[in-house]
Amino acid sequence: MTPSAGNLFTNPPANPPADELFEVLTQRPGWKIERITSWGHATPQGEWFDQTTDEWVVLLAGAARLQIEGEPAPRELGAGDWVFLPARLRHRVEWTDETRPTIWLAFHIVPEVIKGL
Amino acid sequence: MTPSAGNLFTNPPANPPADELFEVLTQRPGWKIERITSWGHATPQGEWFDQTTDEWVVLLAGAARLQIEGEPAPRELGAGDWVFLPARLRHRVEWTDETRPTIWLAFHIVPEVIKGL
Repeated sequence: MTPSAGNLFTNPPANPPADELFEVLTQRPGWKIERITSWGHATPQGEWFDQTTDEWVVLLAGAARLQIEGEPAPRELGAGDWVFLPARLRHRVEWTDETRPTIWLAFHIVPEVIKGL
Repeated sequence: MTPSAGNLFTNPPANPPADELFEVLTQRPGWKIERITSWGHATPQGEWFDQTTDEWVVLLAGAARLQIEGEPAPRELGAGDWVFLPARLRHRVEWTDETRPTIWLAFHIVPEVIKGL
């Protein structure tokens, strides 16, 4: 069998795309892993992500500000910064770098319904 | 609530440690995410990883060669290279760079027992 494989840093867009790019790398029942490429994008004013799945996300290139509901200020994220966002924790991307691509790796997982690891 | 957070590139060892470092970043029932730091380490000769969990792993810094059972030669991995290793796919780390830390991010997930994402 040939396992699926790839590289997170290949084929970034040459110019800022109109919308953020969401690319699913691997998906199985209960979870998926995606690469997200932002370039000056942000969550529309007044909107929040309010997800039914847990999300573990790391910023691998670029820079962003992530606002988590109830926190006094957005978190400044640089390369290597990760955060675990449990389902229903409302959050929004306040800002991403306009001068270069920001690359995220995000793991979306159905929360706490399996046992035994 | 304060979500857990960290940085993948902080506090690397200053010198090659005796053993690979395994650090669990986040763990929930059914899955865990860990950072692995190698520095010239390899799987002992003749041994294989033969896991009951699926593993999605990405090399973020350094370099390695990953042998998957049945493949003619090891895969050369550099920064950003990822591979999905389903449970029971035997594999071994043939080599990691002796001159600098190799940092892996690994997601271990109980295979295909949840539905609905």
